[in-house]
Amino acid sequence: MIQIFVTGGTFDKEYDFVTGRLFFRDSSLPKMLEVGRSTLDVSIRTLMMVDSLDITPQDRENIAHNCRSTDTDQILITHGTDTMTETAEHLAKADIRGKTIVITGAMIPYAFGSSSDGFFNLGSALAFVQALPPGVYIVMNGRYFTWDGVRKNRATGFFEAV
Amino acid sequence: MIQIFVTGGTFDKEYDFVTGRLFFRDSSLPKMLEVGRSTLDVSIRTLMMVDSLDITPQDRENIAHNCRSTDTDQILITHGTDTMTETAEHLAKADIRGKTIVITGAMIPYAFGSSSDGFFNLGSALAFVQALPPGVYIVMNGRYFTWDGVRKNRATGFFEAV
Amino acid sequence: MIQIFVTGGTFDKEYDFVTGRLFFRDSSLPKMLEVGRSTLDVSIRTLMMVDSLDITPQDRENIAHNCRSTDTDQILITHGTDTMTETAEHLAKADIRGKTIVITGAMIPYAFGSSSDGFFNLGSALAFVQALPPGVYIVMNGRYFTWDGVRKNRATGFFEAV
Amino acid sequence: MIQIFVTGGTFDKEYDFVTGRLFFRDSSLPKMLEVGRSTLDVSIRTLMMVDSLDITPQDRENIAHNCRSTDTDQILITHGTDTMTETAEHLAKADIRGKTIVITGAMIPYAFGSSSDGFFNLGSALAFVQALPPGVYIVMNGRYFTWDGVRKNRATGFFEAV
Repeated sequence: MIQIFVTGGTFDKEYDFVTGRLFFRDSSLPKMLEVGRSTLDVSIRTLMMVDSLDITPQDRENIAHNCRSTDTDQILITHGTDTMTETAEHLAKADIRGKTIVITGAMIPYAFGSSSDGFFNLGSALAFVQALPPGVYIVMNGRYFTWDGVRKNRATGFFEAV
Repeated sequence: MIQIFVTGGTFDKEYDFVTGRLFFRDSSLPKMLEVGRSTLDVSIRTLMMVDSLDITPQDRENIAHNCRSTDTDQILITHGTDTMTETAEHLAKADIRGKTIVITGAMIPYAFGSSSDGFFNLGSALAFVQALPPGVYIVMNGRYFTWDGVRKNRATGFFEAV
Repeated sequence: MIQIFVTGGTFDKEYDFVTGRLFFRDSSLPKMLEVGRSTLDVSIRTLMMVDSLDITPQDRENIAHNCRSTDTDQILITHGTDTMTETAEHLAKADIRGKTIVITGAMIPYAFGSSSDGFFNLGSALAFVQALPPGVYIVMNGRYFTWDGVRKNRATGFFEAV
Repeated sequence: MIQIFVTGGTFDKEYDFVTGRLFFRDSSLPKMLEVGRSTLDVSIRTLMMVDSLDITPQDRENIAHNCRSTDTDQILITHGTDTMTETAEHLAKADIRGKTIVITGAMIPYAFGSSSDGFFNLGSALAFVQALPPGVYIVMNGRYFTWDGVRKNRATGFFEAV
């Protein structure tokens, strides 16, 4: 079984046509798994629905706590891209043993249709979480990066190995 | 480097509004990799553009030949779902050594927009081809199957372990 | 009030991923009116769900009968493009008085996403049915044509004035 | 010939994945007319690309000047919804004679895919500009409103007759 923890991020943002702003409502994950025709045994739990710039150290400890306490050893976390590496580092140092933790997100909300990278990222993250050895990884741009081997290039929006 | 071989299938079908039939034109793969914001080193080569019910033994040998002769040991093949397992078996018995070969496709054409599983499947196939040991696999429904451990349920359109 | 009669056609076709063929299920019209944020007073009735090549003279008389018996004088008919002009001619000669009847359709199913002309056609057909004087019209390609002043160019899929 | 003036608004906003904000680039109108398979004789001119809250009295006089000086008597203006009625009033009082001026927009950007009302609104606006007598109108929600008979309900995002 794969445990999916939802934390928000661009991945799950929607457009509020009254205010003209992006906001969070429900996660698109159940619908995405249906459209992807996934037959994986998956459990989805929303831990928070926030922009990753607003994630606090306490939120990160909350995520770590949930990673520790879940029974499964395959964990996928959806997360805003801006502080994805901070959360990855926190989890890597959080004494979680024998689990493959993959963090992914999107640069364009899934709700924005055919221009979004979210559906592609979800496909690759679900695959990597099944195939990679225990550890903490970021999955973006079709690739996986170890938690300490990646940074987001904020000018281009691409993740780069360091 | 990942070698992608395109063979057609529903994945790449388009709708011909003059005849009302599905047909093949160019592969959507370059656009999909762009939308997916992939930074993988990928080479795309179209071997054929056919419905997989029309793939002949000679076509399969052609695919096998291309798998053998490509320099890379990570190969992704897009393929119609109806005879995906036949091609997988052919490749598994074709004396191709030390290469990870992943075959994927779609139940709904990528060109049909947000109802298609193709973009999700591409994401997971690209991930599995990087992470799985040498062998021949089918990637559908978020999962990977070994070539001799899967069949397509033609009534439901889902792939099942056997 | 605007009466909408659904007869099928490419407009409402969907893709059956098990058989690989196009088929009819429910009309997309209610969803389209919702996405279009329509506040029009509309009544939708499905008369048939067929390819317009399969529409019989009796079907056309059925459509005419419904146009006659509905209380409203604004009628929009969704219809396959292949025999749209035949149905228009039938209605024009069917002794229906004082009503504006607009027939529209699509070259690409609405279900196929952002490549479809259906949503645009629905918007223009709803506008023309409110603004044109009584008569029978075909609305395609952003334009309206009188029933006896139009033909479908089967090579290009565009409607042309004659 | 139909003259289309582009002024910006939600209709043409896009999502900037680097900053996470909406912005203006090129208008989607040419692509929309292509997907809509329009065969109308249309001229598109971008007058400005702004949020309608930022439109100044001078901008409105600029729009009015362009409406006066264009040769055609069918004018469609794309415009943000927030101050659509102010621009409509300005044009109605700007001594433009014998022209049908239709103002439309969208509550959700066309670039956001299948959730947008923009494509539907464009279809209905193009129809109304061909069919309505001279005057200044707002076209939203499948309906047309005279310039002095409409307001936007800012809580719901719908236009209402007053």
